[in-house]
Amino acid sequence: MKHGTTDGTRIVSAARSELEAHSSITHNPGRRALLTRSAAAAAGLAGAGLAGADMLPVPSSNKTPGRPIPETEYGMPSKYEAHVKRVRTNVFVNKQNFSDWSFTPLHQQLGTVTPNGLIYERHHNGVPDINPDQHRFAIHGMVKRPLVFTMADLMKYPSVSRFHFMECSGNGLTDWLKPMARTVQQTHGLLSCAQWTGIPLSTLLDEAGVQPGATWALAEGADGSAHARSIPMQKMLDDALLVYASNGEMLRPENGYPLRLFIPGWEGNVSIKWLRRIKLGDQPWHLRSETARYTDPMPDGKWRQFSFDMEAKSVITSPSGEMTVRPGPVEIVGFAWSGNGKIRAVDVTVDGGRTWREATLEEPVLDKCLARFRLKWQWDGSPTSIASRAVDSTGYVQPTVEDIQKVRAIVGFVQHHNGVFPWSINAAGEVKNAIA
Amino acid sequence: MKHGTTDGTRIVSAARSELEAHSSITHNPGRRALLTRSAAAAAGLAGAGLAGADMLPVPSSNKTPGRPIPETEYGMPSKYEAHVKRVRTNVFVNKQNFSDWSFTPLHQQLGTVTPNGLIYERHHNGVPDINPDQHRFAIHGMVKRPLVFTMADLMKYPSVSRFHFMECSGNGLTDWLKPMARTVQQTHGLLSCAQWTGIPLSTLLDEAGVQPGATWALAEGADGSAHARSIPMQKMLDDALLVYASNGEMLRPENGYPLRLFIPGWEGNVSIKWLRRIKLGDQPWHLRSETARYTDPMPDGKWRQFSFDMEAKSVITSPSGEMTVRPGPVEIVGFAWSGNGKIRAVDVTVDGGRTWREATLEEPVLDKCLARFRLKWQWDGSPTSIASRAVDSTGYVQPTVEDIQKVRAIVGFVQHHNGVFPWSINAAGEVKNAIA
Repeated sequence: MKHGTTDGTRIVSAARSELEAHSSITHNPGRRALLTRSAAAAAGLAGAGLAGADMLPVPSSNKTPGRPIPETEYGMPSKYEAHVKRVRTNVFVNKQNFSDWSFTPLHQQLGTVTPNGLIYERHHNGVPDINPDQHRFAIHGMVKRPLVFTMADLMKYPSVSRFHFMECSGNGLTDWLKPMARTVQQTHGLLSCAQWTGIPLSTLLDEAGVQPGATWALAEGADGSAHARSIPMQKMLDDALLVYASNGEMLRPENGYPLRLFIPGWEGNVSIKWLRRIKLGDQPWHLRSETARYTDPMPDGKWRQFSFDMEAKSVITSPSGEMTVRPGPVEIVGFAWSGNGKIRAVDVTVDGGRTWREATLEEPVLDKCLARFRLKWQWDGSPTSIASRAVDSTGYVQPTVEDIQKVRAIVGFVQHHNGVFPWSINAAGEVKNAIA
Repeated sequence: MKHGTTDGTRIVSAARSELEAHSSITHNPGRRALLTRSAAAAAGLAGAGLAGADMLPVPSSNKTPGRPIPETEYGMPSKYEAHVKRVRTNVFVNKQNFSDWSFTPLHQQLGTVTPNGLIYERHHNGVPDINPDQHRFAIHGMVKRPLVFTMADLMKYPSVSRFHFMECSGNGLTDWLKPMARTVQQTHGLLSCAQWTGIPLSTLLDEAGVQPGATWALAEGADGSAHARSIPMQKMLDDALLVYASNGEMLRPENGYPLRLFIPGWEGNVSIKWLRRIKLGDQPWHLRSETARYTDPMPDGKWRQFSFDMEAKSVITSPSGEMTVRPGPVEIVGFAWSGNGKIRAVDVTVDGGRTWREATLEEPVLDKCLARFRLKWQWDGSPTSIASRAVDSTGYVQPTVEDIQKVRAIVGFVQHHNGVFPWSINAAGEVKNAIA
C-alpha cells in the first residue's frame, strides 16, 4: 500500500474572506446558502457538521443504468448545452450570406482553448467540400523546384503543435464610437484559440529552394472566392505553419479542411483556408483583398495596406453585455492576447478609467495565445463602468479608441479595433456595451 | 504600410538531407515526387522553377459557392474523417455492456490535446442523463459546515484551467506477457489529454472547514453504479480539481457532465464522474472499487490497495500496430507522460533494446501532461523491433515488464501496466504488437 496513510490534514478556521470572494454575477447568488440551510433543516441538524448531507435525496440517475457505449462513436455536447453555439448575426443581418462570418461564444468559453465546434468562421464564398485524397498543394513561382504535394505527402513531414489565438481583423468593427453590438460574443467573438498542428512552412520552402530576390508569397485558397493574400517571405520563413489539425484532430471543414496556412499573431484573413498554392515573387500582388478590403484609413485620407499584426488587446467576458450583477463580490474575468508576444499584465478599472488594478493572469501564459485574467471586486451597487487593458511582452499597452484616433481615421466599419472596451453597469446591475 | 518590404529572403541550396528526412510510413511514399514530375511534364517545364504549378488544374471547389453558414451552429468533423472514432472493443467483446470502456484513437491524434469527442470512456453502469439545474453536490462528514451546492453556485467560484493527461489504470491490461491487442488505440487508448477547467477543491474544503483528523475523502458519482473511491485528504488539498469543463466547454455527458472530480496524475477511476458528494473521514472506506477492483497483485500473493500514481510511461504511436513501413526514412513519433511530474526525456530503440537514442520532445512540456516525442530513423529493411522509454522529472525511468515482474505478480488482466512497449517490424514492413 503506497498511500496507506496521510497526515495532510489542514485545519481551516477563519478563512471566510476568501470564501466569500466568490462571485455574484448570476441570477440567484443566495441559492447555495439557502439550500445548505434547508438541507440542514430537513435533516434536523443544527450545524454540528456531521452527516447532514447524507440526507440529500439519492438522484434518479443513481437508480437506473445509463446509456451504454455504442460500438464506435464521436462524442457530442450534452443536450442541456444546446444554447452554446456560434451565431451568425450581430447587429445587422448579412443578406449576402456567402461572404459571411459567425462568432465564438466567448462568454461561455471555459479555459483558453476554443473547442473545434465553436471556432469562429469567416468565409468569402461559403465552405467548400474538399476530398482530401484529391486535394493538391503547390509551391511555385520564384523557387528552384516547383513542388506539388498530396495530403498523404504532407502528413509524412515532421509536425509541430502550437497554442495560438486567431482573430479576424474585422473583430469589433461595428463598435468603435457608439454601442451597436450587445454581447461580448458579438463585439469580440471573431476570436478563437486552439492547438494548431502542422508543418513549419520553412521546411517545404527549403525543399522547393527559395530564389534570391523572392520577398513576397501569394497564398491562395481552393474555395469559391479563391481568397488570396500577399505575405512577406520573412514571416513565411519565421513561423508560418501549414496546418492540418486543430485541438488534436483534422481541421473542421469551416476552418480550412484539409489544409490551411496559419500565420501566428497576424490578422486571420492571411491564414488562408483550403490552401491550394503558395507562389513566391518579388513584390506584393495588390489583390482586391489588400486594396478594397483589409486596409486601414489614415487621418490624411490615404489607406494603409498590409497592417498584419494583431496588436495587444483584451476584453472582460464576465460580467459582459446582457449579463446582470448584484451588489457584493463580483469576479471579473476576461481574455487578453497579443500578436507580438506574451501577455505581461492586464489592468482592470472598475471606476470608468480613473484607477486601474492589476489582474491575476492564469498560467501557462503562452506566446501569441489567449491568456485568462481575473480580479475580485466588491460592487457597491452604484452605476459605473469596467474595462481591461493589456500590456504585452514588448511593453506595448493596449490603447483607448481615443489613442487610436490620433493615428488613424475611424470612418465607418474600420478594421483592427484593439481599443480598450468598457461595459457599463447601471443601478439595476444590467451590463451594457459602453463604447463611446 | 507597416510591412512594405522585407529583406528576409533565405537562399537554400544543399539542404536535401533535412528534406529527405520526412517519413515513409504511409503507403505511397513516392507519390509526391511522381506528381511533381508529372505536373512539370504536363506544363512542358524542365525544372526552371518558374510557373509550372500554375498549370495545376483549378479544382471544382474554386468554381462554385460553398455551404453558407447556418444561423447558429455547433461544428462537426468533415465527413471524410468519419473513420476517426472511439472504438469499444479491443481483443474481446464485452458482453456486459453497462460496465464498459471505449478507446481514444491515439494513432490519429494530432497534437497533445484530445478533442472532446474522442476522450476515452470508462463507465461502471452507462452514461447517466443529468440535468445540471437539478444536480446537487455536497461536502459533508468530518467538516465544520456541511455544504450543498448547485451548479450555478459552483460556476461563480474562481476557476483554474490546466492541461493534464488522464489514463485508466487498466490501460494495456490485456497485453503484459503476450500480444493480444493489435493497434495502439487498443493497447494504449484508455488515455487522453485535455485542458480541464474547474475549482481547486481546496477552496470548497476550506469553506466547509476540514475537521482535525480528517485524513481521507470519499467521492461518489450520481451514475447507476454509484461509483466511489476513497482518496487521501492530502491529495484533495494539494491539486484536486472540481471540474466542469474540458477544452473550453462544459464536459461531455460521457466524461462526467455536469461535474467531476479530477485528480491530476492519478489513475482515472478516482476522478469520479457525475460527482454527487465528497465525505470526509479518518480512514479509507474499503469500497468494492478498492478491494475487488483497482488493486495490484504482489509476488507474495497479497494485493496492493490504493496504488494511485500513474508512473512514467510512453508509447510509439507511429509506426504502430497494423501500419506498414517502407525501407528509407521513417519518422518515429509517440507520446510520453508521467503522473509524477514533467517528462524529462524519451529514449527510443530501433534495434530491439540493444541501443537507445534520445528523441526530441516538442514544447511546451507541461506537468502531468502528454508530451510528443519524435526521432528520425533510416530503416534498412531488416526485421527489428522499436520501443520508447520515458524518464520523468523525478528521475524515474519507465521500466520493462521484466522490471515490473520483479516487484509485482503479473497474473491475468492486471492494472498499472507502464512497461516499455515494443512494436516489431517484419521484412514486409508490417508493424505488430511485440510485447512478450
